[in-house]
Amino acid sequence: MSSKFTKVTDPNHDIRGGHGRAYNYSSGPAQMPIEVMEQFQKEFLNWDGSGVGCAELVHRGPGFAKLYKDVVDKTRQFLEVPDEFDIIFFNAGASNQMSATIFNLLKEGGTANYCPHGWWSQKAVTEARKYMDPNLVIDLPASGAVTIPPESEWKINPDASYTYFVENETINGTEFLDFPFHLFPKDMIFVADMSSSLGSKKVDWSKYGVCYASSGKNFGPSGVCVTIIRKDLIGKHMKTTPM
Amino acid sequence: MSSKFTKVTDPNHDIRGGHGRAYNYSSGPAQMPIEVMEQFQKEFLNWDGSGVGCAELVHRGPGFAKLYKDVVDKTRQFLEVPDEFDIIFFNAGASNQMSATIFNLLKEGGTANYCPHGWWSQKAVTEARKYMDPNLVIDLPASGAVTIPPESEWKINPDASYTYFVENETINGTEFLDFPFHLFPKDMIFVADMSSSLGSKKVDWSKYGVCYASSGKNFGPSGVCVTIIRKDLIGKHMKTTPM
Repeated sequence: MSSKFTKVTDPNHDIRGGHGRAYNYSSGPAQMPIEVMEQFQKEFLNWDGSGVGCAELVHRGPGFAKLYKDVVDKTRQFLEVPDEFDIIFFNAGASNQMSATIFNLLKEGGTANYCPHGWWSQKAVTEARKYMDPNLVIDLPASGAVTIPPESEWKINPDASYTYFVENETINGTEFLDFPFHLFPKDMIFVADMSSSLGSKKVDWSKYGVCYASSGKNFGPSGVCVTIIRKDLIGKHMKTTPM
Repeated sequence: MSSKFTKVTDPNHDIRGGHGRAYNYSSGPAQMPIEVMEQFQKEFLNWDGSGVGCAELVHRGPGFAKLYKDVVDKTRQFLEVPDEFDIIFFNAGASNQMSATIFNLLKEGGTANYCPHGWWSQKAVTEARKYMDPNLVIDLPASGAVTIPPESEWKINPDASYTYFVENETINGTEFLDFPFHLFPKDMIFVADMSSSLGSKKVDWSKYGVCYASSGKNFGPSGVCVTIIRKDLIGKHMKTTPM
């Protein structure tokens, strides 16, 4: 994970503030559209004519409710998310969804399928080991080789509470371009970390139970996470789920 | 919790953007200093001449590290926090610290003292009941009366892993102006939610193990929490602590 970025002067943006925008080639938070940032900047002191900036908005007030609904509605439209899914934005990072997945979906004494093929999914396995003996459908090669084992070698537990995978591993360079859903039972709940892919291609929502993504990658500022979850999966969490 | 605010035109701020600043009298996030917001606004597209806005900064990069260190250093100076405490900013809300307290400080099979005198501390008790049988030092009156029972009625468990209290209950109107630390054993670890008081008065840090506050109240934007914790209390968390 390089933290360097290359500063390239963009003549089209030089007129905006007198500085060139730097292009960020690292695997961290991505550049946001200048038009969006300029609108935010303009409204930062006075959101929607309220006399209050968005960082000062009362979270229970009509102003914030309107803002949040607008963001959710536009996200639903953009990602073509069906009505049977809720869209929730969290201010904790996407890694927080690794334990949220377990607390919300793991059945008592149960296990879950994990498909580690890189750094992020290995982190999810480490989290899972705190609460269960996870079933490793595929195994992360000790050599760190950038391959995903062939489907013939996949070891699936059909009774798992859910199956978890990271769609794209930015650090390792492996990606499920076409995840083999057909290898699993039809009623399996799939949970996907789409941090670096959500928004870049069409999603077949009928395949997923939960999908989450760090907004910083593809469609927002860093520090925000969006979770898209089938409504019937909400509310079945363990009693020991932290607030 | 009223979500209304009164819009009062301030002639001193009218020159800044052509709109009066609204004064927010609700118990939610507070108004921030206009000078701070103007600086943020100015640097939003281009932080510190980097060509990158602060919402696009790579969290592992030197830019963010510099920004974070600066915020921590200034917080330490302002609140006069001794070196034996760490200052940590979280993007999850302050309520998250209710479970963080338990996961980090509760001894196996142990209990903790809770001193509920209002809505927020009752919420902390509800969280505690997921993981222990908390000892209620004082009891929240069913009538919701805005009083704190006299010290003679306090029921303290001297073997509790820690003692938790909310310094000021904004909804109920009760506040510990002078918490009776002397009633407890000398080595008791005190955890205080200071969301609506931190920054408003001098803190005797020698009394506390952990203090946390939602920044939105007294010294920052909503959605951020600051936790100030004695360094020797870090790293003793339960194995089942979520990441």
